[in-house]
Amino acid sequence: MLKKPRGSLFIVSAPSGAGKTTLCKNIVSMVPDIRFSISYTTRQQREGEINGTDYTFVSTDVFKRMADRGEFIEWAEVHGELYGTSRKMIDSFRAEGYDLILDIDTQGATQLRGKNKSGTFIFILPPSIKELKKRLKERMTDSDEVIRKRLKRATAEIKTYIDYDYVIINDNLDRALMEFESIILAERARTHNINPVWIEDMFLKQEEQ
Amino acid sequence: MLKKPRGSLFIVSAPSGAGKTTLCKNIVSMVPDIRFSISYTTRQQREGEINGTDYTFVSTDVFKRMADRGEFIEWAEVHGELYGTSRKMIDSFRAEGYDLILDIDTQGATQLRGKNKSGTFIFILPPSIKELKKRLKERMTDSDEVIRKRLKRATAEIKTYIDYDYVIINDNLDRALMEFESIILAERARTHNINPVWIEDMFLKQEEQ
Repeated sequence: MLKKPRGSLFIVSAPSGAGKTTLCKNIVSMVPDIRFSISYTTRQQREGEINGTDYTFVSTDVFKRMADRGEFIEWAEVHGELYGTSRKMIDSFRAEGYDLILDIDTQGATQLRGKNKSGTFIFILPPSIKELKKRLKERMTDSDEVIRKRLKRATAEIKTYIDYDYVIINDNLDRALMEFESIILAERARTHNINPVWIEDMFLKQEEQ
Repeated sequence: MLKKPRGSLFIVSAPSGAGKTTLCKNIVSMVPDIRFSISYTTRQQREGEINGTDYTFVSTDVFKRMADRGEFIEWAEVHGELYGTSRKMIDSFRAEGYDLILDIDTQGATQLRGKNKSGTFIFILPPSIKELKKRLKERMTDSDEVIRKRLKRATAEIKTYIDYDYVIINDNLDRALMEFESIILAERARTHNINPVWIEDMFLKQEEQ
């Protein structure tokens, strides 16, 4: 087999309003053999969201018990709610050879880096802070106070872009998707993802015959 | 400006018969803002080749004088002929902001790595050594003895794939081109190619207003 059997992780972070969810949903239908990791969360299920597809919604008690048992490879509190990534789910997708997209906030990404988890870290930016402000206001779901808080948090998050491997500017969805796709395809062509046994079989053994 | 102003180098090596020339010719017409570096060589100009487009053809005397003056960032002898990459040409393309593809043999690539030249190293492989043998025979330009030599050299070159950043298997031109394009686009989205001043201007200064 040309590629190494174990799937790669793509860790995606972005400030709220950068369009991360839309990008992640689109990319899994564009690129073969990649799946989206479904996070656990204690936050309220929103209209249109499906339990087990968008998130796995759990109570704070259940979440904390899972965290205590070490069932999350990372978890963090964001805007007062808990979000976590299940170790078991990741392992089962990877064992089947799928690459995996993890939608993780900047705190969770820092935890993964600290654990020396191998993965590709991607930061998604809106075109500008002005545009981010506009997008948050247009949502009309949040009060001015919440928007102000989100923007403050966004700026703090944006400062961590430097710790990521790649930066995608989401000024145009198609262009951003093409960059995202390129990053995944390029990562698959990385030398360390090529199976040395395959090279040996296809080129170095046959030559001796 | 979003991207850093200086162009990146893409160093491409492959054993003879892997289809490197076709890939490189196609990719510069697919991807914007990238140019192909034209090597100097002492070898005979072949039918259909244009001086100054495919190669710059020079005498051995002229080549050696250029090498002595340090005008090549790398040069090597391949099958008894000399090939070199002009430093001046690279600098002028990069100064204009173009990325640049360097078609360089494995010896030249080793020289560049030794000089700590920053660049992306790509190795192109044929689908198998069997297929390579077939392709070389179909060319009908070379004697059995020359083919045998080329295959021996190819095997030695293939063993160096491990020193490259990326491996492209050229079993299908379209697929190989798509991988090549992905590598270039992904490289452009790398955090170290993003201009920190742009981030500062677009996100961190405006927030204070």
